[in-house]
Amino acid sequence: MSEFSSLDALRAACMGLAEPDEPAAQAAWERQDTLTKPPRSLGRLEEIVAWLARWQRLPRPRLDRVKVVVFAGSHGVTAQGVSAFPAEVTQQMVANFAAGGAAINQLARAAGADLAVVPLEVERPTGDITMEPAMSEQEFLAAVCAGYEAVHESLDLLCIGEMGIGNTTVAAALAAGLFDGAASDWTGRGTGVDDAGLARKTAAVEKALARHADAAGDPLALAMRLGGRELAAMLGAALAARRRHVPLLVDGFVAGAAVAPLARLRADGLAHAMAGHVSAEAAHPRLLAALGMKPLLDLGMRLGEASGACLAVNVARSALACFDGMATFGDAGVSQS
Amino acid sequence: MSEFSSLDALRAACMGLAEPDEPAAQAAWERQDTLTKPPRSLGRLEEIVAWLARWQRLPRPRLDRVKVVVFAGSHGVTAQGVSAFPAEVTQQMVANFAAGGAAINQLARAAGADLAVVPLEVERPTGDITMEPAMSEQEFLAAVCAGYEAVHESLDLLCIGEMGIGNTTVAAALAAGLFDGAASDWTGRGTGVDDAGLARKTAAVEKALARHADAAGDPLALAMRLGGRELAAMLGAALAARRRHVPLLVDGFVAGAAVAPLARLRADGLAHAMAGHVSAEAAHPRLLAALGMKPLLDLGMRLGEASGACLAVNVARSALACFDGMATFGDAGVSQS
Repeated sequence: MSEFSSLDALRAACMGLAEPDEPAAQAAWERQDTLTKPPRSLGRLEEIVAWLARWQRLPRPRLDRVKVVVFAGSHGVTAQGVSAFPAEVTQQMVANFAAGGAAINQLARAAGADLAVVPLEVERPTGDITMEPAMSEQEFLAAVCAGYEAVHESLDLLCIGEMGIGNTTVAAALAAGLFDGAASDWTGRGTGVDDAGLARKTAAVEKALARHADAAGDPLALAMRLGGRELAAMLGAALAARRRHVPLLVDGFVAGAAVAPLARLRADGLAHAMAGHVSAEAAHPRLLAALGMKPLLDLGMRLGEASGACLAVNVARSALACFDGMATFGDAGVSQS
Repeated sequence: MSEFSSLDALRAACMGLAEPDEPAAQAAWERQDTLTKPPRSLGRLEEIVAWLARWQRLPRPRLDRVKVVVFAGSHGVTAQGVSAFPAEVTQQMVANFAAGGAAINQLARAAGADLAVVPLEVERPTGDITMEPAMSEQEFLAAVCAGYEAVHESLDLLCIGEMGIGNTTVAAALAAGLFDGAASDWTGRGTGVDDAGLARKTAAVEKALARHADAAGDPLALAMRLGGRELAAMLGAALAARRRHVPLLVDGFVAGAAVAPLARLRADGLAHAMAGHVSAEAAHPRLLAALGMKPLLDLGMRLGEASGACLAVNVARSALACFDGMATFGDAGVSQS
C-alpha cells in the first residue's frame, strides 16, 4: 500500500478513520424494544447487534461473511529464554493450521467462519528487542500492509489473532510502552513458563523498555521497535476493518497490545472493536481496562490463534438470530408492562 | 411416577444418585494433554469436555442429542404486584414459544438443540405464598414428575429453564429459605420492576418466609410451599438427568433456585450440573456462590427461558470440536516444551 510508505503516512491513515453510523445503531435498538422480551433483557446480546449495525451501517446487520485471520511471526527475543516452547514451534504450528489440526481450525468451523492464516516471514525472526528494534521502518510497514491487505474483501465480521513463540514478551513490552507501568505489571506466563522463565521474561521486558525509552509517546514507533510482524499485521488488519466498516473481534493479550496503538493515536480508534474474551494471561485484564474494553467471554483460555475471538462469534450469531427471528409484542399478542 | 408418591419417597430418590465416572473424565484429560496446544490453554473448554465425559460415562463424549426444556407455570403471588408484566403474559409466551417467536426458539436453533416447552397448568396459578403454600404435596409431586418425565429419552446434554410471571419472587423466597439471609439479599428486579415494585416484592418474600418458617431445614417442603410448578418440574428434570447420566446446564436465578434443593439434600447433588451463565438478576451471583457453581457466561442477560444455558451449548460444542478435531503433537510434528 503506497499510502503506508512511511510512519508519518501510516499515522495520518490512523487518524482519518471511518465514523460510526449512529442512526443504524439506534434503529436496531428501537427494533429490540419491540421484541417479545423484557426491554434489554438479552443484555450484551442486544449491545452486539447495535454494534454490528453501527459499523456495518445497516439497521438490520448481517453475519453472512465472517472471517478469522491468524497472523504468525517469529521473535528474536526468544533467545532470552522467555518461552516454554522452542521457537521452531511457530513454523510447526503454521503447518498444523494448514493441515487443519489446530484449535482454531475446529473453532472457526464451529462458528461458521472462514479461516485464513498469514505467516509473516516466520523463517526470519525479528530483532531481539532487548538489544535492537524488532523491525526497521520498512519491515514494520510491510507487515502492517500485509495485515491491511488480508482484509481486502467485504466482510460482516472479522476476528484477528496470532501465533508466535515469544510474542507475549513483545506484547508485554509494547503494552508497557504504550500505557506505562512496570515490566512486571505486564508480563505473564504466556504458554506456561515456570517461575525462572517468568523472571527471565520480566527482565527481558525491562531491558527492552530501557533500550527503547526514546520511543515513548510515539505509538507506532513503539509498535515497530517493541512489537513483531504479526502484531504489526494485526494493527493493519484493524485499520483495514475500520476503513471498510467491518466490526472487529479482538482476541487475547497479544492481539490487544497489537491494536492498542490505534487507541493511543485517537481515543475512538478502536470503537469498531470488541474484545472477544479476557484470557488467563495475567496482564490481559489490565490491558482491557486501559483500552476501556469489556470482554464478551471469560473462559480461562490462553491459547491465542484468535480462539477467544472466534468463540465470541457464536454469541454474535445467537444475538443476531434473536434479533432477526423473534416475534414482536404486537405480532405475538403478548401484553407489555 | 409411583416412586414419587410422597415427599419421603422423593427425598429418598434424591439421595440415591448416580455417581460420576472419574476414569472417563481422566481419559479425557489425558487426551487433552496430547493435543497441539499448551497444556490446559483452552481453560474451561477442557473442563467442559471432562465434565461431559464424567457424566456421559464416555472418554470421548458426544453432543449429538442436545435438548432444551422450558417449563412454564403461573403464580398466585402476582396478586401482590411483584412483576412488571401482567400474569397473563405467561400463557401468551407459551403460545409464542409454540409459534417459534421467542428468544429461546432462535437460540435453540442456533445451538443445534431440540426445544420442548412444558406448560404446567398455567391457567391455574399456585397459591399466593404470602398467605398459603404454593402447592399441596400432591400438586408438587405431580409437577416434579412432569419434569422428570420430560427427560425420558437418551440425551447427551440437557438445558433447563423457565417462564412464569412472578417466579423470581418465589425463587427469591425459596433461595432465602434454603440458604438463609434477608429477603432483600435474594430479591431483584426480575423482568424490570421499579423501586416501588421491588419494595412490594421484597415485602412479599419477607411475608412468605415468615408464613412458612416451620418448613425451614426441609428443602423439599420449602420447594413445595415457596416454589412453583415450573420450579418443581426443573427439580424433577435435574433429578432425571442425574439418574440418566445426562450432563445438565442450568439457566438463571429461577432455575438455580429450583434445583438447589438437590444440593441441600446431598452435597454433590448437583455435581452433574454446570451453570450456563450468571444473569443480571441481583441475587444470582449469591445463589451461584451458595451452590459452588462458576458460571460459563456473563452477558448481562435476565430473560429466563433457558436462554443463558442454551447459549452455553455453543461453548460446549466448540470445546468438543477442539477435543475431537485437533491433531496431537505427535501427528502434527509439533515440538513440546
